[in-house]
Amino acid sequence: MLELRTNRGREGGPGARAKIWTVSETTADTTGQQPPARRGAAYDSAFLRACRREPVPHTPVWFMRQAGRSLPEYLKVREGIPMLESCMRPELVKEITLQPVRRHKVDAAIFFSDIVVPLKAIGIDVDIKPGIGPVIADPIRTAEDLKRLRNLEPDDVPYITEAVGLLVDELGSTPLIGFAGAPYTLASYLVEGGPSKNHENTKAMMYGQPELWAELVDRLADITSAFLKVQIEAGASAVQLFDSWVGALAPDDYRRSVMPASTKVFDAVAGYGVPRIHFGVGTGELLGLMGQAGADVVGVDWRVPLNVAAERVGPGKALQGNLDPAVLFAPTHAVETKAREVLHAAQAIGSSGHIFNLGHGVLPSMDPDALSRLVAFVHEASAR
Amino acid sequence: MLELRTNRGREGGPGARAKIWTVSETTADTTGQQPPARRGAAYDSAFLRACRREPVPHTPVWFMRQAGRSLPEYLKVREGIPMLESCMRPELVKEITLQPVRRHKVDAAIFFSDIVVPLKAIGIDVDIKPGIGPVIADPIRTAEDLKRLRNLEPDDVPYITEAVGLLVDELGSTPLIGFAGAPYTLASYLVEGGPSKNHENTKAMMYGQPELWAELVDRLADITSAFLKVQIEAGASAVQLFDSWVGALAPDDYRRSVMPASTKVFDAVAGYGVPRIHFGVGTGELLGLMGQAGADVVGVDWRVPLNVAAERVGPGKALQGNLDPAVLFAPTHAVETKAREVLHAAQAIGSSGHIFNLGHGVLPSMDPDALSRLVAFVHEASAR
Repeated sequence: MLELRTNRGREGGPGARAKIWTVSETTADTTGQQPPARRGAAYDSAFLRACRREPVPHTPVWFMRQAGRSLPEYLKVREGIPMLESCMRPELVKEITLQPVRRHKVDAAIFFSDIVVPLKAIGIDVDIKPGIGPVIADPIRTAEDLKRLRNLEPDDVPYITEAVGLLVDELGSTPLIGFAGAPYTLASYLVEGGPSKNHENTKAMMYGQPELWAELVDRLADITSAFLKVQIEAGASAVQLFDSWVGALAPDDYRRSVMPASTKVFDAVAGYGVPRIHFGVGTGELLGLMGQAGADVVGVDWRVPLNVAAERVGPGKALQGNLDPAVLFAPTHAVETKAREVLHAAQAIGSSGHIFNLGHGVLPSMDPDALSRLVAFVHEASAR
Repeated sequence: MLELRTNRGREGGPGARAKIWTVSETTADTTGQQPPARRGAAYDSAFLRACRREPVPHTPVWFMRQAGRSLPEYLKVREGIPMLESCMRPELVKEITLQPVRRHKVDAAIFFSDIVVPLKAIGIDVDIKPGIGPVIADPIRTAEDLKRLRNLEPDDVPYITEAVGLLVDELGSTPLIGFAGAPYTLASYLVEGGPSKNHENTKAMMYGQPELWAELVDRLADITSAFLKVQIEAGASAVQLFDSWVGALAPDDYRRSVMPASTKVFDAVAGYGVPRIHFGVGTGELLGLMGQAGADVVGVDWRVPLNVAAERVGPGKALQGNLDPAVLFAPTHAVETKAREVLHAAQAIGSSGHIFNLGHGVLPSMDPDALSRLVAFVHEASAR
């Protein structure tokens, strides 16, 4: 069984050469109930094999926020260009996304973008202020405000389609991870008007106006789904749904007020057969539910040992994580000791199904060389 | 068996009337191996009974940071007085500590102070900057720096002894909770030089210079122990050790690098027989270890349901918590629904051994009336 699909060819434009996907013989299902998994050039990469819990030659490794502020070459190309504008320039996105792949030899590229890009694309007045984060000019707090959240169409983000296309052509057998912000995290920015320590307004709505809240996260689920679809259609071979702030919630609240929306997103992209990763910080109590929402890979922060995470998530899912980012500020021998502890804890999952990552993003003040050394160390220490 | 002790009489000064403690007949141990528990005027209060897991007429309730910025009467008396200076004025400390007891009818008073007060008292150049937090002029990062951390003597903090004395006289049967910062949290401020999101320098020392780190937290354990002893000797009938930021650590790191110092603190005050409470934010994975360090009561943030916390902490300890503070921004009916969920989850501990609290501190923007209503609701809903 073989299927030819020309995805990006539909859009035309610079990155529009035909891309050929073939059905994986191991996962093809002739009943039609299971979507066929695509065989892009990266299909047999260590990263995608680990996502599918297949045997790997070494534990794959990439770093959240690997493309960004810790690299001098990034600071150089970004000079004078505001953050959101940089996300809309395909050649620049391509360069920034590739920088850490070249430098660190990581096993996957993460698309350079921001979780508020789809909000900006549908007309929300949002800006990313240096040192602060996303700032929303008019927070969303009423039913009337919700009307501003229209659906996202692929035509709203042609620069995303183009940038992904450029990247996939260039990356070859290195997989590209697309990503989006999850409904809770996007809602927290929209309701608070920016980053917030305590999410007072968000939770006041969630607890006090549950119907309005449900409508808000449902709309965001649709926008997020559309944004992920654009990236997958353009050639991303995995997606990560970042629910950065959802660790602010207790499990019951997550289950009642967030999980339906996150599940909607995962369901919306299930048909593509690309691995779906889900990550949030401080989500130790939520790991099981975040997996159940539809993730194939559950990202774990550094607070929960991977063997404990494996128990909470249950069988059938891969894990991603979870070295404490702050370890990178210690001497190399300490970094390697802690990295070895992560690899050791990951053995609880079995011999595959682990993607090495930090337990949170790369910090701007990190030494890039320390990251490169860590990649080499993980590859060597985990070689099968 | 009866013992008379005159504690504050030794110090002399304004609050120096003799205080009489008697040995609890239920906990007296004639072998001398167990310290006698004192019977102050508050001994049979609902709060202290709950700490000892004895039957209570209602679930006792108090709020972390109840004395402070959410109260207009607090803002009024603090006007023009810097934070640390206000901690050194016994009459002002008394007034601020009493304000929430008067207003909310909480079951315990928490001593108005700050975790950096003992550091200031031994000569560390520290200030609390509004909107930032504690700022240390010269961070502690080398063996040489450690020499600046001398032991704390009671004479360094006469204003603490005096303020506690004034308060105990005034509070009568309402217990006063003394408190201190735990070694990890104090160390993080000293090493970083102030509040820090990622604790880079702290962890670099912990991972990279484990002996220096161990010496640092050991010294802080001694200072903290001395600070708690002063408060207990002056009449505090319980103590809370705040390890606010220890949730930044994975369990293995806590066990290796922090737990010995925290244990030293709890051991140092074990002889007084007053309940020892331990609390940190985001400590779901650490609850069992924090209990093992020597706490009689384990504080739980709102992320971990109390029935789950009870399993992790194990038998023989009371729990304190854990309403999400942000719930207070929702309408009263939502607050009461969530408070009822906390009381319900607490039933897993049994009919006693639960102290109702928020899962973190009172926020400055909270409506004080909402807090007062919550106290009344908890009392009524939990009446036995």
